[in-house]
Amino acid sequence: MSSKGTKKTMRIIPLGGLEQVGMNITAFCYGEDIIVVDCGLAFPSDDMLGIDLVIPDVTFLREHKEQVRGYFITHGHEDHIGALPYVLRDVPAPVYGTQLTIAIIANKLEEAPREVDVPLEVVDYGDTISCGSISVEYIRTNHSIAGSSALAITTPAGTVIHTGDFKIDFTPVYGDTIDLQRLGVLGTKGVLALLCDSTNALKPGMTMSERTVGKTFDNIFADNVNHRIIVATFASNVDRIQQIINCAVKYGRKVAIDGRSMVNIVNTAVELGYIRLPENVLIPLEETSRYPSEQLVLIMTGSQGEPMAALSRVAASAHKKITIFPGDVVIISSTPIPGNEKSVFRLINDLSVLGANVIFQDTHVSGHACQDEIRFLYSLIRPKYAIPIHGEFRHRIAQRNLCLDLGWDKEHVIVLKSGDVLSLSQKKAEITETVPARGVLVDGLGVGDVGNIVLRDRQYLSENGILIVSLCMDTDEMYFVSEPEIVTKGFVYIKDAEEIINRAKEIVVSCMEMFSDSHSRDIGRLKADIRNALSEFIWRELKRRPMILPIIVEAE
Amino acid sequence: MSSKGTKKTMRIIPLGGLEQVGMNITAFCYGEDIIVVDCGLAFPSDDMLGIDLVIPDVTFLREHKEQVRGYFITHGHEDHIGALPYVLRDVPAPVYGTQLTIAIIANKLEEAPREVDVPLEVVDYGDTISCGSISVEYIRTNHSIAGSSALAITTPAGTVIHTGDFKIDFTPVYGDTIDLQRLGVLGTKGVLALLCDSTNALKPGMTMSERTVGKTFDNIFADNVNHRIIVATFASNVDRIQQIINCAVKYGRKVAIDGRSMVNIVNTAVELGYIRLPENVLIPLEETSRYPSEQLVLIMTGSQGEPMAALSRVAASAHKKITIFPGDVVIISSTPIPGNEKSVFRLINDLSVLGANVIFQDTHVSGHACQDEIRFLYSLIRPKYAIPIHGEFRHRIAQRNLCLDLGWDKEHVIVLKSGDVLSLSQKKAEITETVPARGVLVDGLGVGDVGNIVLRDRQYLSENGILIVSLCMDTDEMYFVSEPEIVTKGFVYIKDAEEIINRAKEIVVSCMEMFSDSHSRDIGRLKADIRNALSEFIWRELKRRPMILPIIVEAE
Repeated sequence: MSSKGTKKTMRIIPLGGLEQVGMNITAFCYGEDIIVVDCGLAFPSDDMLGIDLVIPDVTFLREHKEQVRGYFITHGHEDHIGALPYVLRDVPAPVYGTQLTIAIIANKLEEAPREVDVPLEVVDYGDTISCGSISVEYIRTNHSIAGSSALAITTPAGTVIHTGDFKIDFTPVYGDTIDLQRLGVLGTKGVLALLCDSTNALKPGMTMSERTVGKTFDNIFADNVNHRIIVATFASNVDRIQQIINCAVKYGRKVAIDGRSMVNIVNTAVELGYIRLPENVLIPLEETSRYPSEQLVLIMTGSQGEPMAALSRVAASAHKKITIFPGDVVIISSTPIPGNEKSVFRLINDLSVLGANVIFQDTHVSGHACQDEIRFLYSLIRPKYAIPIHGEFRHRIAQRNLCLDLGWDKEHVIVLKSGDVLSLSQKKAEITETVPARGVLVDGLGVGDVGNIVLRDRQYLSENGILIVSLCMDTDEMYFVSEPEIVTKGFVYIKDAEEIINRAKEIVVSCMEMFSDSHSRDIGRLKADIRNALSEFIWRELKRRPMILPIIVEAE
Repeated sequence: MSSKGTKKTMRIIPLGGLEQVGMNITAFCYGEDIIVVDCGLAFPSDDMLGIDLVIPDVTFLREHKEQVRGYFITHGHEDHIGALPYVLRDVPAPVYGTQLTIAIIANKLEEAPREVDVPLEVVDYGDTISCGSISVEYIRTNHSIAGSSALAITTPAGTVIHTGDFKIDFTPVYGDTIDLQRLGVLGTKGVLALLCDSTNALKPGMTMSERTVGKTFDNIFADNVNHRIIVATFASNVDRIQQIINCAVKYGRKVAIDGRSMVNIVNTAVELGYIRLPENVLIPLEETSRYPSEQLVLIMTGSQGEPMAALSRVAASAHKKITIFPGDVVIISSTPIPGNEKSVFRLINDLSVLGANVIFQDTHVSGHACQDEIRFLYSLIRPKYAIPIHGEFRHRIAQRNLCLDLGWDKEHVIVLKSGDVLSLSQKKAEITETVPARGVLVDGLGVGDVGNIVLRDRQYLSENGILIVSLCMDTDEMYFVSEPEIVTKGFVYIKDAEEIINRAKEIVVSCMEMFSDSHSRDIGRLKADIRNALSEFIWRELKRRPMILPIIVEAE
């Protein structure tokens, strides 16, 4: 290990996902070859008003388009595949992944607003794909979606292991435990760096097995044989859905599915054999009315309180086909993602007010490794460098602290920021440069055309509303053709504000008179005068600051 | 107990705080007498854009103004006192509370935008205040602010106990354990109903003692003798602040305080003897530069990631007097309130990026009773009726379930909604009517003048922005005096949209031409035509829906 490749250097470049949680995408470069691991999107933070999603800035890939050999996807979650429809348009290359991952990506590309045509290649665990000087081996892991993989990325500089999102599940529902043996073998051969999932690095112990949720479900089904059972969970958690189906079969219930993504994924997973579904269990939602409540299980989206998802519509009594009856058992089988807590709690309150018995404790396990699993992995692989990835900065710091507690020296634990170019060899690891790596905002069909100024305006409008003053002026002769017209939106009930608006008009008229008297031709000054006078007036009267927008229309 | 008052009925009316968490205010009525327990405000939910705070609708109190004998405040938190400056203006009456509570209320009323003049009466534990047919006894409790009280409210119909916010702390920092003996004595005499804090009714076990946080602090101080220590916590948690001061004294550090509310409360608490502060420990923030880092503790606001609070400004490198140095230890001594999670996590990430060692685990205990404490209280008092209060609906349902598990029958556990009038006697409990009890929105000086239409507009503007079309028209002769002017805010970068805006203008011009050709005088129709044509065009081009606002200025 020490003789080979000591002078050879590979580069690792996280292009997103480190400040903006979720936007997982990392470039691995050696010589003239570049491969990309994952290509995720982030959901907008609270201050990105009206933004649909955030995709990575792939300027670096675009500038080296000819060198990009392929996208190697670890699993089919949005934060690992969601930006593919955008990025592949600019930087096309083959996409690799396990069967379910590729099926989900294929669905996604079909629904994309603009067509993308690249080869989609299904890979089995144990397969190795060679791209010039870089080869990538797929290794089985466990996570909250089937078909998840770690990647062993080998270049002449050495082998780097990227865990993707993972946990160690000794009793998984589908498939086998993470391939610890293979990871151990790679470890004995010498691993240059381990890029390891940090999401749960603040949590002690081990993440529980997915199978424990099945036991909770079984108890709930046994306790509630006289009631309808509704379960909301993530559409992509096919193992969770399998366990609900298993309970339905055991307790003699029919299953109906609701929510577009849930229907899509269940169909795909059944087709590919990831879900085993006995005949005559699944019924269309429309047919549920033919069965008594106690013979039904409804599985639906909306476990995060997403306002348009099925369960939220049910809770708001706005679902066309499903109404809550007192006694219905509603299982919320997920934990709120940070930022969604209030929506989920509102969902629970609303369902409780309708008389549902809402169960949300012990009905979910995480898909990410906790501290003991992370320690286990480092001890099994014993890489030269530790590079915490995924999660927020505080989680990566927590993984770094775990490594330091295991006796690592500081120089061998590297916490990267998005855009850092890490040059890595058997001799050293250093950040040699940075490349652009800020999130790009997507709003409707627009990619990158909404930026800080627009967002700042949206923020301001959302808190204060707008007051528009329109007037018409002959700018050749410099006289006013009209009275001022004042319109407000998001400011105050107009019926409460009639008097204020009338006084505001008088203020504008006096600005106009002063302007006429001054014989100025500076329309900008007139606008500024109106803005200042109104702003001061409204602050004095109401302690509010609506956006004030004078518009001077030119008479022809 | 059975002979007296069997036909006599009191009424209990929660006027807020049940749908809108935090707005704690309950009226207790007997005959011609009304007393009010607490008078809190709620902070706006995410959909109340630009709203400063929410206060209860006190229509019922206003309509019975002459009967309101007093406000009995359980403790000095905003969600129990915050609406007093507004409500007292409409319905003045004496305000009762323990010493610290009254001092905080006095500060609050002094800062109120409009003057309020009512008697503020300091009450000691054990005191009973009589208001006609109702008497109120103050009973010591434990909570996350000193001076917290339960109230025993006695009318000819019986005695009702209102716990306020409480926990059972066997080793409190200031004062004594909750007065379990007095509660037991009242129980033996017969308690008609217990209104009990539900906030932690989903959490098993007992809430830990405030003193355990002191032990954690001591360990952190011992481990970090070479670093500056910064602690953020709630200003009102004077016991927490006492414990930080104790550690500072023990480890020979000076203490500086930052954040307006923190400075206010610490001054008040020191003055009243709730905080014991040795001389020469507290120094002004300005003087901290004279001491080496390791001799300093800074205590500040901002533990919830509130954007304008001290710690948030420090994390954003926007604090005028405090800069983070690598190695600084920052203790976040609170748990995120639902809805604040993302802000708090961002705070931790930002501080970590600056090199601070952020400690946020085991640095806080709740001020609310968990399941065992709730069970304990019911078993001690053995009331006839259980009325879960505080927390969200799901928490009150959880307390109801606890009672049912203790063997209560359903008819004796009553979950109220805001505005329900509960008529209560030794014979029965029933909801006999409802009164108005929806939150009133406060925006600047306006109380209740921002409602659903304004909020819907703010929401729409925040997600989509606005496109304004102004044009001038002679409506007598029906001809256009100007070209259309288009202005957008919060829509899209104008430089990216020049072409779109030009094409939009052409569309408006063709609407104007068609209108002229039609010889219509219906300006409303012209506006609708412009709105529809532009809306369709922009959706087709950008898949966006800005608010489209045509303004027709009349030429004189």
